[in-house]
Amino acid sequence: MEAAARTNQNVGVTSWFPLFPRLKDKAAKLGKMLKKIGKDDPRRILHSFKAGLALSLISIFYYVNPLFTSLASSSTMWAVLTVVVVMEYTAGGTLSKGLNRTFATLLAGALGLAAQRLAALSSHSAGEPILLSVFVFLLAAMATFSRFVPEIKARYDYGVTIFILTFSMVAVSGYREEELIKLALQRLSTIAIGVGTCLAISIFVFPVWAGEDLHNLLPANIDKLACFLEGLEREYFGEKMGSDQILEEASFLSTYKPVLNSKPTEDLLANFARWEPGHGCFGFCHPWKLYLKVGALTRQCAYSMEAISSHISTDKKNKVISDTEFRERIRTACAEMSSKTGKALAELATSIRQMRTPATAAAQHLSNATTASESLKTLSPAKDASLPEILQSATTASLLSEVVKSAHHLATAVEELSRVAHFKRQEQAHKDSAVKPVAGDESPPHVVVEIEK
Amino acid sequence: MEAAARTNQNVGVTSWFPLFPRLKDKAAKLGKMLKKIGKDDPRRILHSFKAGLALSLISIFYYVNPLFTSLASSSTMWAVLTVVVVMEYTAGGTLSKGLNRTFATLLAGALGLAAQRLAALSSHSAGEPILLSVFVFLLAAMATFSRFVPEIKARYDYGVTIFILTFSMVAVSGYREEELIKLALQRLSTIAIGVGTCLAISIFVFPVWAGEDLHNLLPANIDKLACFLEGLEREYFGEKMGSDQILEEASFLSTYKPVLNSKPTEDLLANFARWEPGHGCFGFCHPWKLYLKVGALTRQCAYSMEAISSHISTDKKNKVISDTEFRERIRTACAEMSSKTGKALAELATSIRQMRTPATAAAQHLSNATTASESLKTLSPAKDASLPEILQSATTASLLSEVVKSAHHLATAVEELSRVAHFKRQEQAHKDSAVKPVAGDESPPHVVVEIEK
Repeated sequence: MEAAARTNQNVGVTSWFPLFPRLKDKAAKLGKMLKKIGKDDPRRILHSFKAGLALSLISIFYYVNPLFTSLASSSTMWAVLTVVVVMEYTAGGTLSKGLNRTFATLLAGALGLAAQRLAALSSHSAGEPILLSVFVFLLAAMATFSRFVPEIKARYDYGVTIFILTFSMVAVSGYREEELIKLALQRLSTIAIGVGTCLAISIFVFPVWAGEDLHNLLPANIDKLACFLEGLEREYFGEKMGSDQILEEASFLSTYKPVLNSKPTEDLLANFARWEPGHGCFGFCHPWKLYLKVGALTRQCAYSMEAISSHISTDKKNKVISDTEFRERIRTACAEMSSKTGKALAELATSIRQMRTPATAAAQHLSNATTASESLKTLSPAKDASLPEILQSATTASLLSEVVKSAHHLATAVEELSRVAHFKRQEQAHKDSAVKPVAGDESPPHVVVEIEK
Repeated sequence: MEAAARTNQNVGVTSWFPLFPRLKDKAAKLGKMLKKIGKDDPRRILHSFKAGLALSLISIFYYVNPLFTSLASSSTMWAVLTVVVVMEYTAGGTLSKGLNRTFATLLAGALGLAAQRLAALSSHSAGEPILLSVFVFLLAAMATFSRFVPEIKARYDYGVTIFILTFSMVAVSGYREEELIKLALQRLSTIAIGVGTCLAISIFVFPVWAGEDLHNLLPANIDKLACFLEGLEREYFGEKMGSDQILEEASFLSTYKPVLNSKPTEDLLANFARWEPGHGCFGFCHPWKLYLKVGALTRQCAYSMEAISSHISTDKKNKVISDTEFRERIRTACAEMSSKTGKALAELATSIRQMRTPATAAAQHLSNATTASESLKTLSPAKDASLPEILQSATTASLLSEVVKSAHHLATAVEELSRVAHFKRQEQAHKDSAVKPVAGDESPPHVVVEIEK
């Protein structure tokens, strides 16, 4: 019996033993990931400290301020709650939540008081609670339904939650407590203290502006597309064409991938940016909607690139090499198209980043790309060419023409943005930044591109 | 003076007057939109009533239950707060929030008590509050940073918020109130009552399952792709080919568009579905991850369709009609590819919807489509064909081959899903649903497709 128990124990130890190194591995992995998250954007570490600071400030305030002692203890909890819930990563997010919270509380508080008065008119003693729960039911149902309206969901979702919450609390609590107005004022003051603390820390201590993030995200995405086209020119249409090893390892084939799913991030940032006051180079009425348009057209380009990338991977497998002169001419045209469009995109990205109108070089590059695309029309394949040979080279060319066309639309949108947002004129920008050379023909963009794995 | 005032008033009236019909218009528009939202998915109306019901139940419970009176009034507020915040549209959402809230409160409450004990050990009188704010700062900063980890953000974001909130409250409030454990138990009981009410209503009153929604979303999206391909065959490659009016108005050209941005919805639903208990045909460990894989491959198909759609719109503008025999043969192959792939996709969608393994007809259709795609390789253009003529027809053909290939990958993923999720075998399904004919060759799918405007 004892022996059996010992054996069992041994089995237990041996089967548990390998867990320790595994746990150690996991902890090491977690540490690495956390380090990477902090390194990728050090503002995240700052934000964590800011959130901690806001909470400690509120708790210290609660301790030292004699004024605070007069407020009910439960009311003070609302200040803590407000800080935890309202503090967001971007200033726009904090503003959006803070304003939503404040106005929803005011509106719902007033409506709740009115509902109470109305219910108090009922002569029957059971009438009041019944009427109040009917009010709560109706208001909550209507407010919940309003959240299905996309505009409300996007901008006022948090406000609606707080509206339902405050209305129910006022309507229900009022039934017990007499000093409802005093309580309401207390609650409002604690919410004001909480929101004020969050806003002050969000806006004045290392602020993270959603607008600025959006403004940086667009050129970063456009640069990813430019990288793809430059990689295509260099590694696929370039002189190394045909050496599979290089293409296999080529990272450029997936640079555009993060752009495909960029819509939710852009929508969120634009939504928060609308709440932000003017800051840095951005006025209060900065045309954030146009950024969304530019973002949508960037994605359009990325969709065509996805088709090219998938076509190229297929292409490699069914290799047909023949009719070299025809292929060579298509190759030259494709190389020209990708190189020029890539440069045009890089220039568009730089112009957004530097907030100046796009250089005429961008339009020049695009028109060169179009010329190359048109030049394909005069080509004729060799008389005995079979369709797969032609398809193989020609489809890429045709898809590239789509990219050139999308890039044209994108350029138009960027020009509209630069006009509406009063970007600096080209000459002005040259004067202002005489030191920094404007990315032109000779300077391909050097961008660090993160690739999702 | 009086006359001037009157004139001003008149101006006021006339300039305000047109506002009334405009307001009326706006109200009518809003009414229409709300009606449409309710009509599109009547479960939304039910959900609003459910939310109202949960809140009224809590407020009635608060009124009639003598047990409740013993709890502090502020504690009862937490029940209302819990209901408002935890009640979500889907059962999985409510479960996720409810469990997050409960466990985060338990964990943070225990840690908060421990922090208090630790701070109380300090001998200096000012030491306790200082130590406590340091604890709050550290915990809040670490927890806030953990929200940047994508996995935590996706699944436990709400839990982390509640964790910070509860910890701060316990740490701060404990400094004032002696009966902290009694308070904690009260709060836990109110949270339990709130979460219990929400869960009971979410799960037992007309439940909306995130898993079921995800299970329906996938075939709906695949059907949209099938509609595009069928429209392509009928209106572009069909006999009407060339009549621009019809293509201009063709709605099929944008059927696939909503699929391009389906990722966030699918991710959210899969995330909620993981929390749901077994229900209907879905076990507790239903492979929701595979649904995401199928969704990703569906989007891959949609990207190729985007390229086709954009190519077709260009194609119309640069019309070159010549070399009709060559074009005719490509047209036939393309029509075959789109028709067969469309049918295969429709069969895949039906098989997911009916939870059975895909019929062999799907594989047959796909292999026919591949044969048609291969047949292009034996084609030769007329000797004097110029490149644009060839490009015009051949690019569409080449892009369609990509779609056929993506559809193959999709079919493989659907088969994997049907195997892992133990879908019914084909024969079994036939026996079970002898009344409903399985969509096959003769029955193209009739799907109502919503087009985003």
